[in-house]
Amino acid sequence: MHRKSLTRQNQPIGDSVKKIQINNPPAKLKIRKLIPKEIREEKKNHIRFATLGGLEEIGRNMSFFEYKDEIVIIDAGLEFPDADTPGVDYLIPNVGYLEARKKNIKGLIITHAHFDHIGAIPYIIEKLGNPTIYTTNLAKEIIKKRQGEFPNSSKLDFEIVKNHDRIKISENFEVEFFNIIHSIPDTVSVLLKTSAGNFVYCTDVKFDYHENGSPIGFEEFEWVSKLNIHTLFLESTNAESTGNSTPEKIVEKNIEEIFKKASGRIFIGIFASLLTRIEEIIKIAEKHNRKVAISGLSMKTNVQIAQNLGYMKIKKGTIIPLEDVNKYRDEKILILSTGAQGEPNASLVKIANGEHRFVQVKHGDTIIFSSSIIPGNEKSVQTLKDNLCRLGAKIFHSKLVDLHASGHATGDELKKIVKIIKPKFYLPIHGQFFMRSVSCELASEVGVPKENCLLPDNGQVVEMTENNAKLTNELIPAYYIMVDGLGVGDVGEIVMRDRRVLSNEGMVVIIATLDRRNGRFLKNPDIISRGFIYLKENKELVEDLRKKIKGVISRIPVHQSMESDYIKSLIRDQIGQFLYNKTKRRPMVLPVVIQV
Amino acid sequence: MHRKSLTRQNQPIGDSVKKIQINNPPAKLKIRKLIPKEIREEKKNHIRFATLGGLEEIGRNMSFFEYKDEIVIIDAGLEFPDADTPGVDYLIPNVGYLEARKKNIKGLIITHAHFDHIGAIPYIIEKLGNPTIYTTNLAKEIIKKRQGEFPNSSKLDFEIVKNHDRIKISENFEVEFFNIIHSIPDTVSVLLKTSAGNFVYCTDVKFDYHENGSPIGFEEFEWVSKLNIHTLFLESTNAESTGNSTPEKIVEKNIEEIFKKASGRIFIGIFASLLTRIEEIIKIAEKHNRKVAISGLSMKTNVQIAQNLGYMKIKKGTIIPLEDVNKYRDEKILILSTGAQGEPNASLVKIANGEHRFVQVKHGDTIIFSSSIIPGNEKSVQTLKDNLCRLGAKIFHSKLVDLHASGHATGDELKKIVKIIKPKFYLPIHGQFFMRSVSCELASEVGVPKENCLLPDNGQVVEMTENNAKLTNELIPAYYIMVDGLGVGDVGEIVMRDRRVLSNEGMVVIIATLDRRNGRFLKNPDIISRGFIYLKENKELVEDLRKKIKGVISRIPVHQSMESDYIKSLIRDQIGQFLYNKTKRRPMVLPVVIQV
Repeated sequence: MHRKSLTRQNQPIGDSVKKIQINNPPAKLKIRKLIPKEIREEKKNHIRFATLGGLEEIGRNMSFFEYKDEIVIIDAGLEFPDADTPGVDYLIPNVGYLEARKKNIKGLIITHAHFDHIGAIPYIIEKLGNPTIYTTNLAKEIIKKRQGEFPNSSKLDFEIVKNHDRIKISENFEVEFFNIIHSIPDTVSVLLKTSAGNFVYCTDVKFDYHENGSPIGFEEFEWVSKLNIHTLFLESTNAESTGNSTPEKIVEKNIEEIFKKASGRIFIGIFASLLTRIEEIIKIAEKHNRKVAISGLSMKTNVQIAQNLGYMKIKKGTIIPLEDVNKYRDEKILILSTGAQGEPNASLVKIANGEHRFVQVKHGDTIIFSSSIIPGNEKSVQTLKDNLCRLGAKIFHSKLVDLHASGHATGDELKKIVKIIKPKFYLPIHGQFFMRSVSCELASEVGVPKENCLLPDNGQVVEMTENNAKLTNELIPAYYIMVDGLGVGDVGEIVMRDRRVLSNEGMVVIIATLDRRNGRFLKNPDIISRGFIYLKENKELVEDLRKKIKGVISRIPVHQSMESDYIKSLIRDQIGQFLYNKTKRRPMVLPVVIQV
Repeated sequence: MHRKSLTRQNQPIGDSVKKIQINNPPAKLKIRKLIPKEIREEKKNHIRFATLGGLEEIGRNMSFFEYKDEIVIIDAGLEFPDADTPGVDYLIPNVGYLEARKKNIKGLIITHAHFDHIGAIPYIIEKLGNPTIYTTNLAKEIIKKRQGEFPNSSKLDFEIVKNHDRIKISENFEVEFFNIIHSIPDTVSVLLKTSAGNFVYCTDVKFDYHENGSPIGFEEFEWVSKLNIHTLFLESTNAESTGNSTPEKIVEKNIEEIFKKASGRIFIGIFASLLTRIEEIIKIAEKHNRKVAISGLSMKTNVQIAQNLGYMKIKKGTIIPLEDVNKYRDEKILILSTGAQGEPNASLVKIANGEHRFVQVKHGDTIIFSSSIIPGNEKSVQTLKDNLCRLGAKIFHSKLVDLHASGHATGDELKKIVKIIKPKFYLPIHGQFFMRSVSCELASEVGVPKENCLLPDNGQVVEMTENNAKLTNELIPAYYIMVDGLGVGDVGEIVMRDRRVLSNEGMVVIIATLDRRNGRFLKNPDIISRGFIYLKENKELVEDLRKKIKGVISRIPVHQSMESDYIKSLIRDQIGQFLYNKTKRRPMVLPVVIQV
């Protein structure tokens, strides 16, 4: 068996994985064996790094650093499911390795309050032994609020951090936080000081531009560049894009232009998490004398928290309850709404479908989509726009003018960060292989030697010493854990595979009730089918199918064993083939043999 | 019941639909009753138009014009399924209305050889009574080739048309064809001359630009503008986009730049249908002394047909069989491949997965994606790029430089067409409501009165007289027909709904084998589950479930009727609730009661 798949899939979590690796070290290590003393030195001093999510997907970000018996974790995010994982709620990182070492965990650092960085906390924090969460004020409140939604969840232990706070988390890890720009306030990057050197771990980051084109947000990187950075860990979400990010000022200007022209109500569909822009939009509304009503629980909560903490300065009386919008003239109303992705049950979708309790769209309304379309949501967004347009609303979206700017730096901007910091080693995070690979190329264009750009997979351990950083063959289990309803991890790959088959081909259950004494039918075979063909309208096929089943059973010689498993496999194979011949489809055939 | 849903869903095809409408004419008609003579005149002379697909989706394009007892159809396309229609092969238009009037059908015009315009032909042509297909040479050969793939399909009757051919299809319909630019050669637009006036029916169209920026492709519209056009029917696919289309010359130039730098083999992933660009790429290969191998049956077929007909001029010896690529030095090879969307089983995916018979990707290979990403395919394309990148290939795609140009005109270009043609009425086709609505706005900006811009739904009849064109309330059945394996139409909404539930929640089959005499269990209940929870790993839940089932049955008083349906509904409700309480999921519960 191929060794990668062995360690990845079949190994129990914990030390056994490591043991196997030692028996079969990577090529480079073998060469080093010529200088045994150096190895011993290095092994003793090396810092280990691995991600448990975020390197083979967008989302589910979680990484950790380990040195001797100390572990520091950064972020604990979730990923939303897609067509490959139908029906599950979230995918979260596998924390088995950390759980087995929970006594070593010295802290969990959270860089910002987006779900792909905080969403796994309620599911894993106890497994990690409830470590102190180091994070900013805003993130703390949003995490706390969410934790409260989980019954019986444990109380969290926070330590609030501010820009340039220095914290000695443990004997060997000192951390300094510095602010970076993202689409939510209070996003920090982490400067980690270790015996091997200084690391910069920079999650989601964007840049903005003044109206004269001069950039905002590079100053902190200038500061950190003086600290002789060993390895820069940098996000890669938009590494494939070029040029500069769209300035938020342009977005705000374009939105304000629409405000100037709109004579009726204005709706803005926006992500609940884009708090920075939401604040700016509320300011525009105040300037144009519009009251602001918020539709969508998550946005309401976020705005409330941000307002309470002073991150949002909103005039008294600006925000009104949604149920009061009809008390004001149309041109005095702005409604901020979640659901710009066309998610079923989200606020804007309910409004478009006429299912909202308080708000109906009418002729003269203006609707602004201040959001990008998350890949996979194109059709539902198009349907949403159709429905709103049919109601007579005027719709503005980013294909016409910029009404949204990404929260992630472009490839060219990432390159600038690398150029400023000049790290010895470069390890792009938050992106699939190709994105990270593009990011490495960009880094090598500005001076990081190609061999110092690292592309590990999820779970692959990276070892760092004073003068080196290298991939190892050691793989920590990092396959995803599915959260479905109350179940965490009980939906696995087999269940997913079945869902995919059921979804594409449907299924046929065949129940053969046989006389135990002679193996003959006690009654006509029962047939249930869903998602394959509508049986009531295909009676001929059902009759043929019954005959075929009887034929399969009757051809078994009476003296032969009537073992259930044997009959089942006969039915599965022959009926499967029969249905394929008749329909060119392969429904899942589930035989049940009842012998009475 | 709301009348729209009545006519749309429950009415049999045929005259009955029409009858209902006459009993309940649209508001406008009611007013007209004041001038009865005019109505009679109008009814006698009106041309009827409806689409059977293409107005509420991208794809499945099919429209027809009807006058007295004559019908002319334009296009008969298919639509590819999406997340809402899992597992089906295609969606095709419902031709019930036409089938009931097949003796009136005078011809089927096909504008070009793309599947969203020709794909339904094998499924519907016999229902339409095998009318003559009027189309260009290239489309004819591609349609014929595909028809041959359907066993027992009838022979098609073609009449080949060329630029500015005038054909009197029937007493009341005269047609003139004129060439327009699209991503496949030999695309025509239709000028339809009728007693009500001249119509232009313009399906997929794009514009190109010379290197100096001057546009190509507007000339024919200048010509047609002199003919006093009554209604312009114009595609809307890219109506939401602005600016000019990317010139093909730029795309070719960018591709050639990559050719100049590549030292190994070059792969280009491209749609099999983009014959115009494929020809240009082959020319670039010839210029740079590379042989061309084609991977992907559909592309091979298309190129062969285009070459045979003289649409592609390829030097002898340029095209080599795919199995011969290893006989040449790497820098002498170009491989054109289908599968740039990451479709499972497509050529490029097989190559990336190391499953291709002849071709493996290696370090030094260059891979160009000369294609857009069809919405919904983002993840599979990303995975494809990841896999190719991991094999050491250098990848170029359109996010970096333009390596693809759309086959559809932008909103601004559509506006130019309207401005040139100056039609009295405007009816955008090929697009969802919002896209068409945007297109109407653009048309009204260049002079078409707003009330003359029409936005019918699929199946909604439009009536046109010399001075008028208006929507009616008449709805022809235009819901889609699903093709799944050998079945056409046997997979309906119920089967789809079941597939969606199965895909999200899975199912649990519960088999209760009861003693007919006393209604008590003869054996333990059998439980089968797929896509819900992996039973083998959740034995406790299974045991609880068994107990619960027994409890449900045992609580039925012995004297009470043990009617199967009653027991089934008990199990369905109570077990459904039980599982929800335990897991917060709602699998489909399928009870089977066997009484022996």
